[in-house]
Amino acid sequence: MRKLTHYPLCPNSRSIRLALAELRLDFELVYEEPWMWRPAFMAINPSGALPVLELDKNVTICGAYAISEYLAESHPSDPVDNGPPPILPGNLEIKSEIRRLVDWFHLKFNNEVTREILYEKHFRRFVEKHVRAPNSEALRTIARNQRYHLEYISFLADHRSWLAGIHLSFADLAAGAHISVLDYLGNIDWRDYPSASRWYARLKSRRSFISILEDDLPNQPPSQHYKDLDY
Amino acid sequence: MRKLTHYPLCPNSRSIRLALAELRLDFELVYEEPWMWRPAFMAINPSGALPVLELDKNVTICGAYAISEYLAESHPSDPVDNGPPPILPGNLEIKSEIRRLVDWFHLKFNNEVTREILYEKHFRRFVEKHVRAPNSEALRTIARNQRYHLEYISFLADHRSWLAGIHLSFADLAAGAHISVLDYLGNIDWRDYPSASRWYARLKSRRSFISILEDDLPNQPPSQHYKDLDY
Repeated sequence: MRKLTHYPLCPNSRSIRLALAELRLDFELVYEEPWMWRPAFMAINPSGALPVLELDKNVTICGAYAISEYLAESHPSDPVDNGPPPILPGNLEIKSEIRRLVDWFHLKFNNEVTREILYEKHFRRFVEKHVRAPNSEALRTIARNQRYHLEYISFLADHRSWLAGIHLSFADLAAGAHISVLDYLGNIDWRDYPSASRWYARLKSRRSFISILEDDLPNQPPSQHYKDLDY
Repeated sequence: MRKLTHYPLCPNSRSIRLALAELRLDFELVYEEPWMWRPAFMAINPSGALPVLELDKNVTICGAYAISEYLAESHPSDPVDNGPPPILPGNLEIKSEIRRLVDWFHLKFNNEVTREILYEKHFRRFVEKHVRAPNSEALRTIARNQRYHLEYISFLADHRSWLAGIHLSFADLAAGAHISVLDYLGNIDWRDYPSASRWYARLKSRRSFISILEDDLPNQPPSQHYKDLDY
């Protein structure tokens, strides 16, 4: 059985959980607290980054970039079998657009929003000796960045069926991973973003999203509307 | 003719210049100052990130991730033609190891070293209103991070012909891109890292590195040994 080492609120982990579920691949989740830098985990991935996918055949793949490309290449389009659609559908140019957006979310969006809000609202309590209130100036900057990013998602959702084009792709899963973390933390007022909200509602209602919506950390329960499909 | 929009000291741009040169693909360089956020450039890549590759056929590919995967997929191994070797050589597992290391350099190394040192020693003068001396505490943290990363490169170089295995790959080009920026800034004392130094000397002596070694910014000339192949 495949094993995916993850942390529930890690957006990179979430994007791979979604990709595996879209490809209908079975896997078991292994919980890891990334701020602990456990030697046994560092021995598996020396960078300390999540997620890590261990395959049946003693192959270990580290990080969302390597895992998503592995899954895309090992599970390409297979119209004969009527199998699940690929996570990087289309020709080379379409794939480049998908990858541009994956980079947008896993790099830019993460640096400017997700990583920062996760630190302020979640990780801080585990890594700081003297826990203090969130930094209000940092929160204002994050809020400004988040608005810009949600407007970009709205723009894409207004012009395309899915974020990168006519087909669902890993770009939607990467974006959904980040958005779902913000939504878990109650950080999005969806009334401000009707187009982005419609895109997220469609994504959220897919089977692949069920496990993500069941996440419920004892020390930080999800926001009230997090699990709601008709929020 | 392909056009690559870049900034000389941008490590992501350098990794793609190296990849294009290794694949023996002609291209012209277009200079862009990434801190300017020029509207004409933002219209090409809304994320504002470098590099951007414009192909002959009106196709634009944004960012080192999308470009490197595009080049790898459009220029696979071609032993019949005796063409240039691919930048992602090997089977899926080997490619995963290459991608793990590309992520290591373009994400982790960049966050912990290159981006920070570039800010302290280069970009700061263009973006701050009142230029002040580099932050000495930041420089100490960067130095500590850099030591850890150079020891990791040394470890890889001690155990493998090239960083990801027996063949040169995009992992070496990504690593070389970051290392060459640090070396340009005179930030590496190579006497401390003999194994990493031997790996870098081999990389530096390749034809693909010539253009990188010719970089010479009028406002910040390279360190004395930067161009030297027998440093």
